[in-house]
Amino acid sequence: MTADLATALRGDPADPELRRRARAWLTRAVEPGSTELWRWVEHHGPVGAAQALAGQTAPSRLQALVGARAGEDRSVEDLRRADVLGARLVTPEDDEWPALPLHSLTLAADRQPAGVDRTTALVPPLALWVRGPARLDALVDRSVALVGSRASTAYGEHVAGDLAHGLTGRGFTTVSGGAFGIDAAAHRGAVAAGGPTVVVLACGVDRPYPAGHARLFDRVLEDGLLVSEWPPGCAPLRHRFLVRNRLIAALTRGTVVVEAAARSGAQATAHRARSLGKVLMAVPGPVTSALSVGCHQLMRAGEQPALLVTSAADVVEAVGDLGTDLAAVAVTSTGPRDELSDIARRVLDACPVRVGVPPERLAVAAGCSELDVLRVLPALELTGLVEWTGTGWRVTRDAAVGGAAG
Amino acid sequence: MTADLATALRGDPADPELRRRARAWLTRAVEPGSTELWRWVEHHGPVGAAQALAGQTAPSRLQALVGARAGEDRSVEDLRRADVLGARLVTPEDDEWPALPLHSLTLAADRQPAGVDRTTALVPPLALWVRGPARLDALVDRSVALVGSRASTAYGEHVAGDLAHGLTGRGFTTVSGGAFGIDAAAHRGAVAAGGPTVVVLACGVDRPYPAGHARLFDRVLEDGLLVSEWPPGCAPLRHRFLVRNRLIAALTRGTVVVEAAARSGAQATAHRARSLGKVLMAVPGPVTSALSVGCHQLMRAGEQPALLVTSAADVVEAVGDLGTDLAAVAVTSTGPRDELSDIARRVLDACPVRVGVPPERLAVAAGCSELDVLRVLPALELTGLVEWTGTGWRVTRDAAVGGAAG
Repeated sequence: MTADLATALRGDPADPELRRRARAWLTRAVEPGSTELWRWVEHHGPVGAAQALAGQTAPSRLQALVGARAGEDRSVEDLRRADVLGARLVTPEDDEWPALPLHSLTLAADRQPAGVDRTTALVPPLALWVRGPARLDALVDRSVALVGSRASTAYGEHVAGDLAHGLTGRGFTTVSGGAFGIDAAAHRGAVAAGGPTVVVLACGVDRPYPAGHARLFDRVLEDGLLVSEWPPGCAPLRHRFLVRNRLIAALTRGTVVVEAAARSGAQATAHRARSLGKVLMAVPGPVTSALSVGCHQLMRAGEQPALLVTSAADVVEAVGDLGTDLAAVAVTSTGPRDELSDIARRVLDACPVRVGVPPERLAVAAGCSELDVLRVLPALELTGLVEWTGTGWRVTRDAAVGGAAG
Repeated sequence: MTADLATALRGDPADPELRRRARAWLTRAVEPGSTELWRWVEHHGPVGAAQALAGQTAPSRLQALVGARAGEDRSVEDLRRADVLGARLVTPEDDEWPALPLHSLTLAADRQPAGVDRTTALVPPLALWVRGPARLDALVDRSVALVGSRASTAYGEHVAGDLAHGLTGRGFTTVSGGAFGIDAAAHRGAVAAGGPTVVVLACGVDRPYPAGHARLFDRVLEDGLLVSEWPPGCAPLRHRFLVRNRLIAALTRGTVVVEAAARSGAQATAHRARSLGKVLMAVPGPVTSALSVGCHQLMRAGEQPALLVTSAADVVEAVGDLGTDLAAVAVTSTGPRDELSDIARRVLDACPVRVGVPPERLAVAAGCSELDVLRVLPALELTGLVEWTGTGWRVTRDAAVGGAAG
């Protein structure tokens, strides 16, 4: 079959269909999470990378990541199976690719030392299998991750449902896994508010796990999405959940930990959200509840504690857009904003009102390079529009008040 | 009677007995809370001030604060009544005066604009009526205020009792009011742990309010203290609770708000603790509980949010002393600490491990002037012993680790 793939991929490496097939092949051939492999695919392009790996001519360290799968090609079958399901492969070459949110992973991958463990590596996906009627990029543009324990309490489930319901009412998409407990409560809250929701799976989108949530997944598919890095048919192996968690953090503007025990998976997702420069939030609970210990730890965590949130309004205040989501008093006179370059204005608009964020995150939000951000920040500070909080940049009160008209 | 007082106070204004009688008279003649009057007493001394007020020769604005009480003198009777009760008047001239903690009020009074409302003014007490066997300065040296709602929940009372119990076990005194709810739960927790506790009253120490807590107050008096700015016999008037609250914040190293509704009295005490440069802490609770809303608001409050605490260990980590309360690895080699001047070393020792504090609070803790603090901080920073957090100064990790041996 390797010979078939090699033959099939012969031709213009920029041909969209060849690239799609190559990426489909790669999602089955390689377990995601290798920064080194991702860099190599970025460098050689998907077609060249797939050809080399299938032809066993890739560097041995990368070839070892593929192993026996180099000799298999189910790419045509996977793409057909997806088509039958109402699913598709979304690749970095597609308009639907959520490039802006996932740029956080690109930046993180560049900063990451080689040899970091695959389950915790911050590396972009090679492609995403997406099932459902909505556009992935549109749904996650204004989205928040709600995560927490599977062994949740009635309190945690109530709060998760309530937050998702409120976020949906405010035009935000809820993103979570498909697990029992907080994940399911969050999706149910969003669904109850009539909103779309995104379930990021650690298995194929044709067999969402757990099976006990079949009706919930059916409901999600009415207007939301099931998303996975793994091709149809893949099983929810244990390590895949850990790898998957980075996507939940990366696709969204911020992560809310609703309930988490000490040293829990939800805390791990939280740390990744922080590493990606996303807003990390946590819900308080009774200090007598073991399921709130992880949340309280995150809110007490040294330099960059999680923001305490108690309602959807609190969450939107932290991740919302100035002018759209946050009350801003309109002013009619011209101000320092009018003098700004396009980049400077975008960086200013990317600065949050409340929590300061580091330049690399501003770059993501403003859609420019970190260097651009560092170039315009001094002028923005001198004009009194932004300020340094000690951990990041945010707009000053004056700029926030005048923001809507700028 | 005015004539009697004027006669009685004739003599050396530095005579301890004259000063005690003058302060006793002042505590009944003037409702506490006037910054202007406190400054005037500081300037003229208690004897001179009492003579002028009793003789109606004080400036009219100050005379107006005394009104008809200028013509009354029950100072001898008050002091005798206290003596019978096992109580005493503790004045700034006495060794027992908690000068260091109350210095926070002196600093705050100096920064305060004239004409601030008496119920919210940050002004030192003119003297304190103290009942019980313990020494006030010794008890409050290592103390924490636990405050909260009278209409508390079972959860709040459980946590308050638990915190007080744990703080007592760690050698910290619990300070609170005498009210139902969180106040009482805190004192009961401390008492259950066999520790002394301090009740700051808004009425005379002979008639602690509420009467329903008579047995609790009796138990407190076995080894703890009842404290009041008002002389024996005074009633717990409504405004006195507000004036009293500043003392609870000032006497302690930090204030923990256990349960508080939005816009509650406990929040007001919290804001004063913050204004006084004390550590402000709050206990999280269910976001569905109206009695935790105030706590969550404090932890979300802009620039200087309250620190989230879930246990006595968390509280001690925030207010404890390096070396005594906080685990510090002993090192035997000499380090940059050994080169420090006495002032620099005291400022270093005053810097907390975790939360940065502003220079004015360091001055209080180090027992030197703010100018001294500002003089030594640059050198301490250059040596890598302290760092600026964006809102205050704290010791660096290196200095903290080497602290015990310094």
